[in-house]
Amino acid sequence: MKISVLAATSGVSVPTIKFYLREGLLHPGAVLNRTQADYDTSHVDRVRLVRALIVSGGLSLAEVRKVLDALDAPPPTWHQLLGRAQDALSPGQVADPTAAQDADGIVKPSTPSPARRLISRQRWQIHSDTPAIGELDRALAVAGDAGIILDDAILDGYAGAVTEIAQLDIQSVPDEPAAALRQVVLGTVLLEPVLRCLRLLTQQDVSFRTFWRRAVQNDGDVAE
Amino acid sequence: MKISVLAATSGVSVPTIKFYLREGLLHPGAVLNRTQADYDTSHVDRVRLVRALIVSGGLSLAEVRKVLDALDAPPPTWHQLLGRAQDALSPGQVADPTAAQDADGIVKPSTPSPARRLISRQRWQIHSDTPAIGELDRALAVAGDAGIILDDAILDGYAGAVTEIAQLDIQSVPDEPAAALRQVVLGTVLLEPVLRCLRLLTQQDVSFRTFWRRAVQNDGDVAE
Repeated sequence: MKISVLAATSGVSVPTIKFYLREGLLHPGAVLNRTQADYDTSHVDRVRLVRALIVSGGLSLAEVRKVLDALDAPPPTWHQLLGRAQDALSPGQVADPTAAQDADGIVKPSTPSPARRLISRQRWQIHSDTPAIGELDRALAVAGDAGIILDDAILDGYAGAVTEIAQLDIQSVPDEPAAALRQVVLGTVLLEPVLRCLRLLTQQDVSFRTFWRRAVQNDGDVAE
Repeated sequence: MKISVLAATSGVSVPTIKFYLREGLLHPGAVLNRTQADYDTSHVDRVRLVRALIVSGGLSLAEVRKVLDALDAPPPTWHQLLGRAQDALSPGQVADPTAAQDADGIVKPSTPSPARRLISRQRWQIHSDTPAIGELDRALAVAGDAGIILDDAILDGYAGAVTEIAQLDIQSVPDEPAAALRQVVLGTVLLEPVLRCLRLLTQQDVSFRTFWRRAVQNDGDVAE
């Protein structure tokens, strides 16, 4: 198909498709002549995927490239699948003060970070150099600076709920490694906005049941 | 304090603080003379908050402004608190085909959107014009285009897990309306990266328990 048909089929404009081609996010079509190339359904799928990762997943171009690289190189073994997925999903190098202390050879067992204490309490099997550990400590520190404090009990509560989400994530992963990697990586990125919407909606429902009653008690009225 | 002390105390550079001032994200200090102003702890708190919303929450300047406006105008009644919070957290106007059909007066009860069917199944109390409804339908469509299909059973499973998260969100909300609004809005934005990290970590743990066994069965070895 011509690039105009690719644009119409994928719902992405011709200039944007040309941008994807220049950035190497889309493989070139078969050259027909000096100004035209022929595209197929593999291009439609890839254009839709790149747009989804950027628009819905909110990934940067560098992050999209990392995800695509991971998908294009299927893992040879099950052992390597998880490492590939985590690498593709990690947001670059995050400074982890705890890791730096370990590198200095200074062992401070009495002051592990909040994330490492959580992992220990939950007995999670986590590679110690997983970037999400440092990222979690940073996110907790930023929330704490703004007055949103998560004590151990609340954090354990969130961890329990998120474990259910992870079980649903993993449950639908197919057996074949390349398909499994695709499911893990894309499912993680593209379900983020779904989970965000679900959180807003369920907050409204839970708030309604909690606060509306509190409000109408003052008004002497009944809500439901 | 001088702007240099504000910078040192908040951990945000002087040029960035000046940018916040120009953009109206930070209230001016008390004017001392033609080139100097005096800042206090309210400025330190606000600078940290703005940085947290931008860096950790990933909000745009327009979204930060909406959140700050909501926080600066405490809701007069409990009834209005939820509306304020949802307005501050909604990502602008999202086209909702279902709502457009309703506006045309064309009732299509046989084809409600996936989000509205979910709300109906779960018996959630949701305002029908909540932006997150249209946003959820769009996120589901984008994921579906990329091959990540959520059937009703899976979506209900995610909804159940997220309801637990919402209950933890709401549980810690204080009684006083202004403080409650702050907790709901900031907690929702700043806990997103925390939940994202928890999901990556629990995925690794659940995957380990699922796939590692599958892998080592082939190798005839034992992982734990």
